[in-house]
Amino acid sequence: MPTGTTVSSAVSSPVTPPLAVTVIGLGAMGSALAGAFLDAGHSVTVWNRTPGKGDALAARGAVVAATAEEAVTASELIVVCLVDYDASEAILTPLAKALSGRTLVNVTADVPDRARTAAAWAAEHGIAYLDGAVMVPTAVVGTPAGLLFYSGDPTTFERYEPVLRALGGRTVHVGDSPDRAAVFDVALLDLFYGAMGAMIHAFALARAHGVPAAEVVPYMTSIVDLLPEALEAMAGDIDARSYPALTAGLGTMAASVDHIVHAGRAAGIDSAQMEGIQRMTDRARELGHADSGWAANYEALINPRTRDRS
Amino acid sequence: MPTGTTVSSAVSSPVTPPLAVTVIGLGAMGSALAGAFLDAGHSVTVWNRTPGKGDALAARGAVVAATAEEAVTASELIVVCLVDYDASEAILTPLAKALSGRTLVNVTADVPDRARTAAAWAAEHGIAYLDGAVMVPTAVVGTPAGLLFYSGDPTTFERYEPVLRALGGRTVHVGDSPDRAAVFDVALLDLFYGAMGAMIHAFALARAHGVPAAEVVPYMTSIVDLLPEALEAMAGDIDARSYPALTAGLGTMAASVDHIVHAGRAAGIDSAQMEGIQRMTDRARELGHADSGWAANYEALINPRTRDRS
Repeated sequence: MPTGTTVSSAVSSPVTPPLAVTVIGLGAMGSALAGAFLDAGHSVTVWNRTPGKGDALAARGAVVAATAEEAVTASELIVVCLVDYDASEAILTPLAKALSGRTLVNVTADVPDRARTAAAWAAEHGIAYLDGAVMVPTAVVGTPAGLLFYSGDPTTFERYEPVLRALGGRTVHVGDSPDRAAVFDVALLDLFYGAMGAMIHAFALARAHGVPAAEVVPYMTSIVDLLPEALEAMAGDIDARSYPALTAGLGTMAASVDHIVHAGRAAGIDSAQMEGIQRMTDRARELGHADSGWAANYEALINPRTRDRS
Repeated sequence: MPTGTTVSSAVSSPVTPPLAVTVIGLGAMGSALAGAFLDAGHSVTVWNRTPGKGDALAARGAVVAATAEEAVTASELIVVCLVDYDASEAILTPLAKALSGRTLVNVTADVPDRARTAAAWAAEHGIAYLDGAVMVPTAVVGTPAGLLFYSGDPTTFERYEPVLRALGGRTVHVGDSPDRAAVFDVALLDLFYGAMGAMIHAFALARAHGVPAAEVVPYMTSIVDLLPEALEAMAGDIDARSYPALTAGLGTMAASVDHIVHAGRAAGIDSAQMEGIQRMTDRARELGHADSGWAANYEALINPRTRDRS
C-alpha cells in the first residue's frame, strides 16, 4: 500500500504555530475548520468553487484566494473538506504540481478505498498526505471535545499536530495506513446511524400504537445507558471470536427482534432496518449460536447466507 | 377495548405488604422476580411447568406448588413470566375459574395485540388484569434502578403498587389501555436492538479493514454520548411532524449512510440492517425531505413505498 512517507521524512520536527494554512471547501464543516484555524491565530487562506462562501471568514481575517492554485501556493499546509472524493479529485487533480512539496490533509468523508487511492496519488506527485475524519458536529470543532482522526505517515502527523490541534482537543493519529481514519469514521458512523435509524423506527412504532414520542423518550435514556458496557464486552468477545452468554442468550434476544418486526409489520410501518437485524439473528441461530451471547451475530455478518444475496 | 376495570373497582385501597404472591414461570427472569418478592418479605408460591426450577427459591423460603392451580389459589396476586403469550395462554386458559376474583399481572414479553387479547380474556372471566414489561436485566430486578412498565386498570395498579414495587424502584403505570406496557416495551427494545445490531456491524466493518474492535471501541462512547440529545430533539419534531434541520440536513446524512452501505458491501459483510436505513433515507428524499432534519425519516417509515414490499 503506497504512502507519502518519503516526502515528509526530511521535515520531521513539529512546526511552531502560527502557520500559513489553506482550507479548500467552505461548506458548513470547511467553514468551521477555517474558523478554528483563525481562532488559533493561524494565517488562513480559503477557497471555494462557488464564490461568496468565504465572506464571513474574510471578515474574521481570512484571505479569500481568487483561484484554487493561488489558495494552494499560499500555504505549506492545505486542508481539504468537500462533499466526497469525486469532488475532491476534481479539484485536486489539476493542482498536483502546485501541491508538490506541500502537505495535503484531506478530511473529506468517503469510504476507505478512496483514501488509499488519494494517498497513492499524492505519493506519486511528491505531496505529503494525511487522510482525516471530523467526528463531531461543526459546533464542537475547535473545542476540547472536538474529535478528529488522522491516518498516514506518522512523521507528517507529528510535524503538523500542533496546527491540527486547533481543530479539536482530541486530535488522534489512528494508524500509518492512510485508510485508517476512514475506517474509524465509517465504523463510528455505522453505530451512529444504526442508532439514529432505530430511534425513528421506535418512535414510529409507539405512535402507530397511539403513544406520542414524548411519552416514551424519557425512558429511552435507560436504554442508551446500557450501551457503553455492552460495547466494551462485545469488542472483546468479537476480537477473541468467543461469545459467552451473560444472562440472556442470542436465541432469547432474537425472539425480541422477532416481536419488533411483527409489531412493525402489524402497524404498517417500514421495518426493513429491523428485518436486516432479524436476518442476522436468523443466520446466527443457523450457525449454531442460539445459546451464545449477542456478539456471536458477528459470525453471521462475516458468513452471510449466499442464496439470497443480490 | 375491554379491560378488567369492573373486577377491581371494589378493592381500590392499596394493599399493605407483606402479601401472598404467586410467580408462574421460573426462567431466569421469573426466578429473579420471585427472588425480589422474597427479599421484600412477601409469602411467595412458585410454579414452573418443568419441575426442579424452584429448588433454589424453595431454599430461600418459597413454597413450590405441585400444580398450577394450587399455585394460583395460594395467592390473591399472580405474576406470570413466560417465554411468550402462546406459552402463557396454554397455562392460563385452563385456570380461568381458579383465577376468577384474583389479580393477574402478566409480564410475559410479546407484541401489543397479544396484551389486548389477554386483557379481554381476563375481563370475560372476572380476573383483574395488568400487563407488564420488565425493562432491565435480571441482575437489576429488585433494585432502585429496576424499571418495569404496567398498563391496564389504574385502580388495580394502585392497589398492588406497594407489592410490585419490590421488583424495581421505577415501577411505572404507563396507561389504562392494557397494551401500553407492551408498546413501551417494544419501542424501547427497538432502539436497543437497533443499536446492538449496529454495534456488531460497526465492529465487523472495522475488522474487515484490519482494525480490531478494541481499537475503535474507546471512541464509540463519543457516539453514544450524542444520542440522548438527539432523542429529545427528534421526539418533539416527530410529534409536531415538523423537521427543521439543525446543522446537517437529511440529504447530507443520507450520503454517510450510502458510504456505510458501500463500505460494508466492499468488505463482503452482510449489511442488510444499514440497507434498511438506506431504504428509509432514499424514501425520505423521494418525499422531498433532503433539506429537512433526520427526524423527517419518520415520514418515510409511515409512508413506505408500496411497490417493493413483500
